[in-house]
Amino acid sequence: MDNDKLAYERLIALGKKMAQEVVEGKGPTFETIVRSKSNILFDEKGFLRLGEKRETRKFLNVGQAKTFMQTVSIANKLKQFIEQNLHTSIRGLYYQLKFSLGEDLDESLFEEQSESNALIEDLEVALGVKREDFHLTTDRKGVLAGPIKIRDSFGGEDIIIDGTKQGRSGWMIPSDVDNGMEIIEVDANYVLVVEKDALWQRLNEDRFWQKEKAILITPKGQASRGTRRLLRKLADMGLPIIVFTDCDAWGWYIYWTMKTGSMNLAYLGRDFSVPEAKFVGVTMSDIERYNFLKKLTIKAKEVDLKRAREMKEYPWIKRHVEWVKELDLVLKTKKKLEQDALQGPRLTFVGDYLREKIRNEEFLP
Amino acid sequence: MDNDKLAYERLIALGKKMAQEVVEGKGPTFETIVRSKSNILFDEKGFLRLGEKRETRKFLNVGQAKTFMQTVSIANKLKQFIEQNLHTSIRGLYYQLKFSLGEDLDESLFEEQSESNALIEDLEVALGVKREDFHLTTDRKGVLAGPIKIRDSFGGEDIIIDGTKQGRSGWMIPSDVDNGMEIIEVDANYVLVVEKDALWQRLNEDRFWQKEKAILITPKGQASRGTRRLLRKLADMGLPIIVFTDCDAWGWYIYWTMKTGSMNLAYLGRDFSVPEAKFVGVTMSDIERYNFLKKLTIKAKEVDLKRAREMKEYPWIKRHVEWVKELDLVLKTKKKLEQDALQGPRLTFVGDYLREKIRNEEFLP
Repeated sequence: MDNDKLAYERLIALGKKMAQEVVEGKGPTFETIVRSKSNILFDEKGFLRLGEKRETRKFLNVGQAKTFMQTVSIANKLKQFIEQNLHTSIRGLYYQLKFSLGEDLDESLFEEQSESNALIEDLEVALGVKREDFHLTTDRKGVLAGPIKIRDSFGGEDIIIDGTKQGRSGWMIPSDVDNGMEIIEVDANYVLVVEKDALWQRLNEDRFWQKEKAILITPKGQASRGTRRLLRKLADMGLPIIVFTDCDAWGWYIYWTMKTGSMNLAYLGRDFSVPEAKFVGVTMSDIERYNFLKKLTIKAKEVDLKRAREMKEYPWIKRHVEWVKELDLVLKTKKKLEQDALQGPRLTFVGDYLREKIRNEEFLP
Repeated sequence: MDNDKLAYERLIALGKKMAQEVVEGKGPTFETIVRSKSNILFDEKGFLRLGEKRETRKFLNVGQAKTFMQTVSIANKLKQFIEQNLHTSIRGLYYQLKFSLGEDLDESLFEEQSESNALIEDLEVALGVKREDFHLTTDRKGVLAGPIKIRDSFGGEDIIIDGTKQGRSGWMIPSDVDNGMEIIEVDANYVLVVEKDALWQRLNEDRFWQKEKAILITPKGQASRGTRRLLRKLADMGLPIIVFTDCDAWGWYIYWTMKTGSMNLAYLGRDFSVPEAKFVGVTMSDIERYNFLKKLTIKAKEVDLKRAREMKEYPWIKRHVEWVKELDLVLKTKKKLEQDALQGPRLTFVGDYLREKIRNEEFLP
């Protein structure tokens, strides 16, 4: 069963429960999980998730009545989207709400999109469903190439995407990789995630994915929901996930968000994180090993140093001595290093660097 | 002949000319076109381009010697990239320069990438060649679907991209759409350019491109070089280019940059502009026509109003009374309107809106 069918059933059940409460003379209620910092914990399996703290919203509480009505309106719209088998963005949903609820009311039920956004998250955690399953599209920007075949059932047609036949472009990872989408064949040794599109293009040109039998993915910076979800699915198939980013604040953030999730997206939990991910580079230690890198370092900015200090305090990072050593090197030398620098000696060096480190399994956890 | 072959010949010719000057006992010189504002003009055919003002850089001028050496170093690297048949980004080029020129010199020839960036533009205009032809990759972010077939000769393989078989993802428009890439079949009535990816996904789901026989493109905001270049090529094949953006400062900017180019990219000239482009919406006049839009407008920000006032002064805009009327409406009502709002009544309304306006040819110039 596709996840959107499950989402639909849970929306219906929510509505029935509320109607029943009204029939019984009680005020309808909506129960969700608290998303504040106090209810975020680091799961021993290696990712951030919400705890058990719940809150109940009541329609008959004056302060909560508007929020309650908004939540029900959103649930109603999402139900319609699934019935119509159509998708839209959270912005599209907002305009639908503005349209249909402005007519008979003096006051607008929604003034700002930020109001509906928070309530979508409420529904996601309350019903244990992702927004993609509610037929909400999200930003997409990852790209893939390599030995994988995917069936995309879309617009009444089945299309087979062959990751080895994507030319210079690659296949653009969509917003929703669950509903109507199936990985039908994989013949890869591992997945390599490359922070920057420019480096992905470089490696794609070298046919790194063919030589290494690897699935080559770039999130193009911070990974979109679709890319994170796809990585989770590939990891679940037993593929090692190896990540290659800049050695700076932004690069580390990209890696750790993919691996453990982040505080403000903790509500997504395991479905969008890959605790198994390993970090191949660029590391400060690479500077000792590849002498030419010395002159290709950049002065670290205050944001990089601040981030390095913060990271050393995260419980899930400071338990890894390898990471502490790396971060100490950053703080001591006040340098950083970009993955682009590995093209210095020759354009194809970056592939050789990766091949060597991956073969020797020289990873950070 | 692919453009990169031409670029290569011109780089060789530049080198030979300089060597000849040295042999003749003269100092070598490099002539380029001035890119300052004073040398930008609006071509009567409808796009911004550079004028005829030229400047000559001399190696034997103390103030220019470093710049001259930098330019020659870059030209040398670009020649190598074409010989090796490899590509990289301008960042990759920068690191190559840092690597190879740092060894024997006390002083580094390049401190910041901004130095090499400006000199790449010098070479582009001096030799009449695009950076893509120098094997430099650029940011890419446009997406396409529709009745078009493209041959992508890449990595020793020929791949046929069928724009009708791209599923939910679409085909990602690459950085270089000239070298090793050929449009082999088009069966479309027009090209529709949709500012936002979310709306593109909406229309792709409705199979707008199939129903309308249209090529559906989103630049995902401001168009990348690759997308602008592809639009130029499609226009050259006689296809009308119809643009659909938000009615706000950013939307107008996206439209006019595609159509006429922009001041700081004027050096690209006709190759990256589409003066034939028409604007289908969203317009302020739509508010009168579609009554529901009244409650879906947003308060214009100061940046929108400022932009509207500026646009009314551009000679190439103020000659269009339709645009002046639109901008006056913005300034009078202090409202703006997003393309997402056209999903208010029902998700598929946006397609009907576009179909009706396109059929009736209700465009702004």
